[in-house]
Amino acid sequence: MVKKAVVLLSGGMDSATTLAIAKREGFEIYALSFDYGQRNFFEIKKAKRIAKFFEVKNHLLIPLRLNKIGGSALTSREIFLPKERGFGEIGKEIPSTYVPARNTIFLSYALAWAEVLRTGDIFIGVNIIDTSGYPDCRPGFISAFERMAHLATKAGVEGKLKFKIHTPLINLSKAGIIKKGLSLGVDYSLTHSCYDPLPDGKACGKCDSCRLRLKGFKEAGSKDPILYE
Amino acid sequence: MVKKAVVLLSGGMDSATTLAIAKREGFEIYALSFDYGQRNFFEIKKAKRIAKFFEVKNHLLIPLRLNKIGGSALTSREIFLPKERGFGEIGKEIPSTYVPARNTIFLSYALAWAEVLRTGDIFIGVNIIDTSGYPDCRPGFISAFERMAHLATKAGVEGKLKFKIHTPLINLSKAGIIKKGLSLGVDYSLTHSCYDPLPDGKACGKCDSCRLRLKGFKEAGSKDPILYE
Repeated sequence: MVKKAVVLLSGGMDSATTLAIAKREGFEIYALSFDYGQRNFFEIKKAKRIAKFFEVKNHLLIPLRLNKIGGSALTSREIFLPKERGFGEIGKEIPSTYVPARNTIFLSYALAWAEVLRTGDIFIGVNIIDTSGYPDCRPGFISAFERMAHLATKAGVEGKLKFKIHTPLINLSKAGIIKKGLSLGVDYSLTHSCYDPLPDGKACGKCDSCRLRLKGFKEAGSKDPILYE
Repeated sequence: MVKKAVVLLSGGMDSATTLAIAKREGFEIYALSFDYGQRNFFEIKKAKRIAKFFEVKNHLLIPLRLNKIGGSALTSREIFLPKERGFGEIGKEIPSTYVPARNTIFLSYALAWAEVLRTGDIFIGVNIIDTSGYPDCRPGFISAFERMAHLATKAGVEGKLKFKIHTPLINLSKAGIIKKGLSLGVDYSLTHSCYDPLPDGKACGKCDSCRLRLKGFKEAGSKDPILYE
């Protein structure tokens, strides 16, 4: 019998690597992406290319309008997007790029789709090592969500599905993620990380996300195939 | 200091009553409604009227496109909407009107907005007595969500907000809800319950939701002010 998995796909390196891992584990992939009114429209284009590259079974793109709620530098033009902080600061405190309850919302949709597809397997590329320190990337959050999922759904309360939020990257360094992805054939030129790219799609090279990415490629002994400003 | 609360507002009786209770408790109301591609477009019009009636501070309407995910008679035309079941059956099993992970998605948005508004108070009109038996209306789900909320958010992990999902109707009968609402001045002619109303807005009187409503008004010794087919 075919094993299905819902995979959250942002267009970034981590979710592309997660998708490759789920595929290698034999899952039929149902990729789920969101247009949440983010600054970064390239993300969605990238997510579509990655889904095509990995020949996923289905790819849903859901508009979220998180900009109506605001509260983050990624969804509101009124909040300052930090750049050129010292490296020491990354991950020390939760930055303004934090989007309130973002992964809770993403996983809630994934849960809904998983139940409709009759699978309990959901993949998300969260990571606690080389990240900006978002709370909804941590193992405690993931297990609390998993527990809730069994009480939130018909298939959960009836015991027909066991929900598992797979987080294969959670304890990897960025370099470790890149090495893993390269071994699985991930084409990182299809991925995107910058919070604030130029109009031509080039990455800024300065935001937290670019800096973590560049550091990761360096430590992995590999060259980042995307273009920078 | 003003106390703010996010109140989930569907346009139905239960959420209108919940809003009235939150207002009576002294909260400034931030009403949150969703257009989730449901059959029932009247719900949204009703939600707007109720928000106006109670002079809420803000009313957000978020499009959700749950019809892209499907899996429910309320979001997909392909699933049969049950009618004229015996009363004994209501609540015995989870019906096809169950929308996968609906309250999880609703509460996730409410959580995001609450964090932006810097309040931990969220109201939802779930009920376990006179309902269709949905899992995401039960106390176990609500407390699991509350627990997760503290791990999912910046304000939660930093201990700056204590999230509380208020469920003032959870143990009331439909008649009890109606009596409570009438005592708080709820105008139930502004509310709507039917899963499948006529084009002119009249309720069908036959679906689970209509039947529970009519039974509630009867037991409360009051007359339902809305029009039926």
